[in-house]
Amino acid sequence: MSGSIFGNIFKVSTFGESHGEALGVVIDGLPAGVKIDREFLAFEMSRRRPGQSQLTTSRNENDAVEILSGVLDDISTGTPLAMIIRNTSQRSKDYSNLENVFRPGHADFGFFSKYGIRDVRGGGRASGRETCARVAAGAVAKMMLKNYGIDICAYAQEIAGIKAQSFDRREIEKNPARCPDPLAAEAMAGAIAAIHAGNDSVGGIVKCFADGVPAGWGEPVFDKLDARLAYAMLTLGSVKGIEFGDGFAVSAMKGSENNDPMLAGGKFATNHAGGILGGIATGERIEFAIAVKPTPSIAQKQNTVDKNGQPQEIVITGRHDPCIVPRIIPVVEAMTALVLADFALLSRCAQIKIK
Amino acid sequence: MSGSIFGNIFKVSTFGESHGEALGVVIDGLPAGVKIDREFLAFEMSRRRPGQSQLTTSRNENDAVEILSGVLDDISTGTPLAMIIRNTSQRSKDYSNLENVFRPGHADFGFFSKYGIRDVRGGGRASGRETCARVAAGAVAKMMLKNYGIDICAYAQEIAGIKAQSFDRREIEKNPARCPDPLAAEAMAGAIAAIHAGNDSVGGIVKCFADGVPAGWGEPVFDKLDARLAYAMLTLGSVKGIEFGDGFAVSAMKGSENNDPMLAGGKFATNHAGGILGGIATGERIEFAIAVKPTPSIAQKQNTVDKNGQPQEIVITGRHDPCIVPRIIPVVEAMTALVLADFALLSRCAQIKIK
Amino acid sequence: MSGSIFGNIFKVSTFGESHGEALGVVIDGLPAGVKIDREFLAFEMSRRRPGQSQLTTSRNENDAVEILSGVLDDISTGTPLAMIIRNTSQRSKDYSNLENVFRPGHADFGFFSKYGIRDVRGGGRASGRETCARVAAGAVAKMMLKNYGIDICAYAQEIAGIKAQSFDRREIEKNPARCPDPLAAEAMAGAIAAIHAGNDSVGGIVKCFADGVPAGWGEPVFDKLDARLAYAMLTLGSVKGIEFGDGFAVSAMKGSENNDPMLAGGKFATNHAGGILGGIATGERIEFAIAVKPTPSIAQKQNTVDKNGQPQEIVITGRHDPCIVPRIIPVVEAMTALVLADFALLSRCAQIKIK
Amino acid sequence: MSGSIFGNIFKVSTFGESHGEALGVVIDGLPAGVKIDREFLAFEMSRRRPGQSQLTTSRNENDAVEILSGVLDDISTGTPLAMIIRNTSQRSKDYSNLENVFRPGHADFGFFSKYGIRDVRGGGRASGRETCARVAAGAVAKMMLKNYGIDICAYAQEIAGIKAQSFDRREIEKNPARCPDPLAAEAMAGAIAAIHAGNDSVGGIVKCFADGVPAGWGEPVFDKLDARLAYAMLTLGSVKGIEFGDGFAVSAMKGSENNDPMLAGGKFATNHAGGILGGIATGERIEFAIAVKPTPSIAQKQNTVDKNGQPQEIVITGRHDPCIVPRIIPVVEAMTALVLADFALLSRCAQIKIK
Repeated sequence: MSGSIFGNIFKVSTFGESHGEALGVVIDGLPAGVKIDREFLAFEMSRRRPGQSQLTTSRNENDAVEILSGVLDDISTGTPLAMIIRNTSQRSKDYSNLENVFRPGHADFGFFSKYGIRDVRGGGRASGRETCARVAAGAVAKMMLKNYGIDICAYAQEIAGIKAQSFDRREIEKNPARCPDPLAAEAMAGAIAAIHAGNDSVGGIVKCFADGVPAGWGEPVFDKLDARLAYAMLTLGSVKGIEFGDGFAVSAMKGSENNDPMLAGGKFATNHAGGILGGIATGERIEFAIAVKPTPSIAQKQNTVDKNGQPQEIVITGRHDPCIVPRIIPVVEAMTALVLADFALLSRCAQIKIK
Repeated sequence: MSGSIFGNIFKVSTFGESHGEALGVVIDGLPAGVKIDREFLAFEMSRRRPGQSQLTTSRNENDAVEILSGVLDDISTGTPLAMIIRNTSQRSKDYSNLENVFRPGHADFGFFSKYGIRDVRGGGRASGRETCARVAAGAVAKMMLKNYGIDICAYAQEIAGIKAQSFDRREIEKNPARCPDPLAAEAMAGAIAAIHAGNDSVGGIVKCFADGVPAGWGEPVFDKLDARLAYAMLTLGSVKGIEFGDGFAVSAMKGSENNDPMLAGGKFATNHAGGILGGIATGERIEFAIAVKPTPSIAQKQNTVDKNGQPQEIVITGRHDPCIVPRIIPVVEAMTALVLADFALLSRCAQIKIK
Repeated sequence: MSGSIFGNIFKVSTFGESHGEALGVVIDGLPAGVKIDREFLAFEMSRRRPGQSQLTTSRNENDAVEILSGVLDDISTGTPLAMIIRNTSQRSKDYSNLENVFRPGHADFGFFSKYGIRDVRGGGRASGRETCARVAAGAVAKMMLKNYGIDICAYAQEIAGIKAQSFDRREIEKNPARCPDPLAAEAMAGAIAAIHAGNDSVGGIVKCFADGVPAGWGEPVFDKLDARLAYAMLTLGSVKGIEFGDGFAVSAMKGSENNDPMLAGGKFATNHAGGILGGIATGERIEFAIAVKPTPSIAQKQNTVDKNGQPQEIVITGRHDPCIVPRIIPVVEAMTALVLADFALLSRCAQIKIK
Repeated sequence: MSGSIFGNIFKVSTFGESHGEALGVVIDGLPAGVKIDREFLAFEMSRRRPGQSQLTTSRNENDAVEILSGVLDDISTGTPLAMIIRNTSQRSKDYSNLENVFRPGHADFGFFSKYGIRDVRGGGRASGRETCARVAAGAVAKMMLKNYGIDICAYAQEIAGIKAQSFDRREIEKNPARCPDPLAAEAMAGAIAAIHAGNDSVGGIVKCFADGVPAGWGEPVFDKLDARLAYAMLTLGSVKGIEFGDGFAVSAMKGSENNDPMLAGGKFATNHAGGILGGIATGERIEFAIAVKPTPSIAQKQNTVDKNGQPQEIVITGRHDPCIVPRIIPVVEAMTALVLADFALLSRCAQIKIK
């Protein structure tokens, strides 16, 4: 596998399977002098951890992060910062009945086609557990971005067709859905519980914004800011779409509606663009939404085939999130932070005089 | 600018401004032995060229491609294949009134913030004209993918709120909207004309599919097939969103609805996934849709500011597409081809034994 | 720090300081299906380990490698293979007297200039201990190259002015100098001991060859085989030069002497080129030599300055190799293996038909 | 071919065959605001051009550079700067007798093994003519480095066994050998003439230094400054070795001789290291030497084989340099400039606070 390295200057290299020894990440390109806040790191990990609520899986993953290098007296040294998270709570026997069959909605068949190998234990590298390395790296990226005054926030905008109708940031971490509208949050929780009771799962929409990104970040023409964010978000196996600003609604809009007029001083009157024009930050809030599919592992009978292409019926037991939206939220923030950290460094190279 | 190189093994490096001497692209990584079809190259360029119909700009760009290297007797040699397209029809004076103001909906302000330089002539590097280098490269990628039996097709699914209701591939290139439904195509043309008459522009939705992509293409975990396609599509300045398979509709779907059951022999009963699971091709049709914003250049009064942050009114004259959808279609195919050509080569490296 | 990732497709990302928690490496790009031989891995580590003989440092580094991912039933899965080596025998107090001064011949001053941070403990990231991650990665690369029939061998050609006069491969691992000439080996050992007794150190020359590299490996024009090998070798802090084939002797040679005539069947009568012409393997033995400088840490008084630029005298105590040649040999082989593994995969992409 | 792109942030992508339409280069990553000096560009090209003297080939290559993009009013815009050089003086018939045979000392056989294609015209991509794109790019890199006060100089240290005994920089460009010692220059010219008269060629040694490189440039552990320079130099097909500072002489030196003591204020008493320790610039002069092999194309009978592996005799006619040293000198400077320009930008990313 080539493909587990992300970033141009701020590069992360992740590794690990859900039921192997450990997962981890190496950050190559973190500048020296960043304050490393271990409490914040643990906090970010706890946000992704399963078993936080009834809405998420009851697996009890103990996601303690060990920092192996790159830090001296809680300050980054400029050398690669490596972190590992041991796998401690894996129950491989949960997967023994899957050894020869492909799970619908999963990457099993693709991986087998690609590598000729079936690593059945919890999905192996394709497991959502892989994202804990990203959250660790993203926490470090956030520490770096603090020096730039950048603030990133993601939340549940919609679950099971129920939409948030209001936004109060303080509410997000107070409810298990991570919804900024407490009334919608309650409805979402009810809907997920009902669907789970029916041995099914459900999808949703996550919104994310970043404040404080300076005008000018983003690299034309391929490494546009939105292109890299889209790239980053679609690296999450359960994400099926992304839109910036007005997004798909632009398809029926006129130019006169979609254009954002500029105001004296270089601000914008509106932000239909979601803070990015031609791939370059405008200085306004960066805004995007992503579509999260329903968890494919469901405890009801499904048709599939085995490694020999023979039809089989499958019921996936084990502990799985009925809705992945609440737990993907810290991962979305983490990936956003990785992208922005990279552009922070790239932006230093745009002019011969350092701004 | 760092950021004009795309691809892991099949790498394209593009250059050129809309009103400079020439645009072009270097392909580094094209294998030896690919038949180079100059007629097909010219045909692909003609599909992107302005002035094809009333729906597109009347600028007359003569997009002749000159191949400078990498080809001997119409066969690729394995060395970098460079192509240039001279700028011949530029009317820089169209832009002289823009010298000091930022156009709403454009990258002007971002570029100026980034580089401290205002290249006003036609948008410079941020111009849509930049994409002609991509179409040239994409044509070569398609020639390479022919060896794999891969077929790529994009078309207008929706313009100005009018949706295609039927699909006949033969219709696509027959109407100026590039819509596979001839009735919808006519309605789209009417809608664009009316909006143009009102000095406005409009957006739409492009769909794209690729047949023949083998199960197993795509690289976990970051270089997922959909992640790279999303990356590629969002490198287009007017694209504001992308979705794969059921896309944003997954937000209200259940796992039992969204999962694609497998059939005997390794095929799938449905294709909600759009041909990609966990970032790896399933062997089914790759399918995605992108949201295209209305052209920002409109011939009506808009509020903006100049380089000093002072309020200005602006009316953008010159020749601009009232709807970019028809002309972005060959570019979407080109970018898809670039992504797939890269994965074709990466897929050779997945196993120690070459499959 | 950006710069701890090496390779195009077979990519290694290393991390770790000499006195941090652990060192390690992530290999991203190892194909699936490679037999992972843990005994061979341990053997390679033992070859690099200090304390093997009187010629090397008496530090007792316990370089047990833990494989964290990418392997199932002793076969590579295609996913990133991560390995860590815990630091267990570090005596940071050996370095306490160095906290504020720069050691002559070391990277201290450069690191401080670069990062503004002084990680004194054993040289931090600049320590030779960093190479144990490379040896681990190189061992895996060798396992992969076994599938290609490639054999790599490095040895001491010269130490303290004493040159090997004969070559018997079986002798190399039998003597502490790793010299293929047992008589020279004995003289080398004597010379090192004498120099060590005088609180000094000494340099030497390592030769390396690789058999079995097929004609055609190497990528023009920048990723030439010799260019990548030179790159790889000079990543070793104590290497000050490299030459291929006739090397610096070509400066006084004529073309008629240096050219290698070809023989019927595509072999060469001679190998002045060292197996590489124009950056591409000829199919002959790849041969190069590298210059290894004397260990800079010596137990005699030297002039230097402290962090404030004030003159200081320094005597470096602690356990240091009087001659690094014997222990760099496995590292040279490892780096050679990393380069060749990368080209093995790149070579699959040269033609549209897979050879 | 993958492999024609060089650099991490300051990236050059070159293309072109010696007898194709044109050669060229795209620089992606040149910051905005660099003064582009077209006269200096032409001057640098003239230094590489054949036919400058009796010592070099009499081919008359008209190496006019056309800048296609990335420059506005003689200032770099931050977008990719592309340049092409048309091939105008090629005499392909000179090569018609080589169509089926491999030239000793050339990359022909390797290229054919790699690509299965024989591009005989002047060596195709493996021709030294390819380096004119590098010189063009290097000239731009020098313009950028001027902002840093960096000065690069290469010269002939040895040709045909004749060594420069003195150094007067003003002499270098005054004599055809580009030797800083006018007496040695004359002897070199005589030696080359005599060897040429005997239908043979000869090699030499080029030295290069760079002044003004700040302490701290270079990226541990793989992207060391010397590692990247070695990489860069060995990308030249006729270079067979490189050494930094004392180079191969370190093999017989003691640590006490090789270490450079530091002086008050952070300077060094000596520069055995050649300005680089542990891969990081010390602030002293960067110094290295490279071994240049004799031109392989000689007008005397040599043994070789044809594409079918059958023995053939070959006499290479056409216009070839009897000694490549004088003309490689500007290329060595160019590659040095490319490496340093990259590190100039990377150095901006080492600390969270921009220095």
